[in-house]
Amino acid sequence: MNLILLEDCDRGGDSCVTLTGARATHLLNVLRVTPGQTVRIGMLDGSFGTGTVEAVNDGRVTMRCVFDADAPPRPRVDVLLALPRPKVLRRLWAQFAALGVGHIILTNASRVERDYFDAHVLLETCYRSLLIEGLQQARDTRLPRVSIHRQFRILVEDQLDALFPSGVRLVADPSGRTSIANALAGRDERVLLAIGPEGGWNEFELNLLAGHGFTRVGLGQRTLRVDTACIALLSQVHSSLA
Amino acid sequence: MNLILLEDCDRGGDSCVTLTGARATHLLNVLRVTPGQTVRIGMLDGSFGTGTVEAVNDGRVTMRCVFDADAPPRPRVDVLLALPRPKVLRRLWAQFAALGVGHIILTNASRVERDYFDAHVLLETCYRSLLIEGLQQARDTRLPRVSIHRQFRILVEDQLDALFPSGVRLVADPSGRTSIANALAGRDERVLLAIGPEGGWNEFELNLLAGHGFTRVGLGQRTLRVDTACIALLSQVHSSLA
Repeated sequence: MNLILLEDCDRGGDSCVTLTGARATHLLNVLRVTPGQTVRIGMLDGSFGTGTVEAVNDGRVTMRCVFDADAPPRPRVDVLLALPRPKVLRRLWAQFAALGVGHIILTNASRVERDYFDAHVLLETCYRSLLIEGLQQARDTRLPRVSIHRQFRILVEDQLDALFPSGVRLVADPSGRTSIANALAGRDERVLLAIGPEGGWNEFELNLLAGHGFTRVGLGQRTLRVDTACIALLSQVHSSLA
Repeated sequence: MNLILLEDCDRGGDSCVTLTGARATHLLNVLRVTPGQTVRIGMLDGSFGTGTVEAVNDGRVTMRCVFDADAPPRPRVDVLLALPRPKVLRRLWAQFAALGVGHIILTNASRVERDYFDAHVLLETCYRSLLIEGLQQARDTRLPRVSIHRQFRILVEDQLDALFPSGVRLVADPSGRTSIANALAGRDERVLLAIGPEGGWNEFELNLLAGHGFTRVGLGQRTLRVDTACIALLSQVHSSLA
């Protein structure tokens, strides 16, 4: 935790908050805070600030909060991801938030198992705390938006223009011969990056994406696991936009 | 498994091998091979080829092997990594092999806990199979070399020139203002990438590395977990060398 993120529900009427649970445990056991000490704080989807510890007792930490730095910009990359196995997705939530993603669009695809959609890890009560964990790691306050789509074709044909109205659309595929750096050279817009399931997009899906403005990009010869590929691809997109 | 890797000990006197264990299970349960079918194979640290299934019985698969494609080049990136927590390192072995690393140099550092060196995951009997798993994922045959060093200063001052005689030396640190793409622009040599522990290198370590030719590079504002950072950094190095 490199940032303690606060939510509206944490705040009482004044500038003080009293934390319990994981954030208090981190403050007490890792940062070992004592009264008078300051820690970096942020409001979820809001600005950065400083918390001054006022009191520590019984596993609770009370801080006086001052917010004095602007909210960070929303990350300029969105992800369209074929729903991975629940175990993989569980690991990915925090990584997406840490690497910086504005909108996580999860979709069905031919090589996605139908029962993945029933997974606990698709419930907001589950993934929200994992996203916040990633934000606190990376010192960001911008909670990624999440949407889940069970019909790939309807998503691409009817919904995507509203979800991602303008910017560069890329689809990662082992057949892609263009590097991300080349595809984004001279571009300064938002990027939507589509990443397929284990086993890849099928031909119909690749053609549908191509027909809706997606440029095919690749990572070279090596076939990576979906979670490794997500991190590698996002890292390259961010580096190309920097 | 996108490649079945064979070792000398798998081979009898002729061109046939009989596989049991994880590789046989994959062939039978995932690829569902039947006699006559061909699969991609490789010799560990050697060439690529084709295996033709001859017989399938009792959980064993017998293949006739022809090796007809050159061995791939050794990956051009080496990693100098401050020993991470055992749980993190366990996840990283396969990722390193999948992303492509020639030599994995593990080292002590001020912020490394001493008992990490006692972890099971540092035994060759443990990590070798994880490295091979990554190679089979990424279709590579080149097993990364591994060396483990308990004294950072002796490693950097006395041993590193033998381990990495020539090439570009980079050290990743949140304070780095140079991107990997800029640091490697126009360079075509091997790269050694140093990655610190959770909490980072300390000043002494950064200065020692700087004194031994390491250029400081960064990933931008966001602080990533060590395992996420390893993948993100390696991906950028490979992309800059491509």
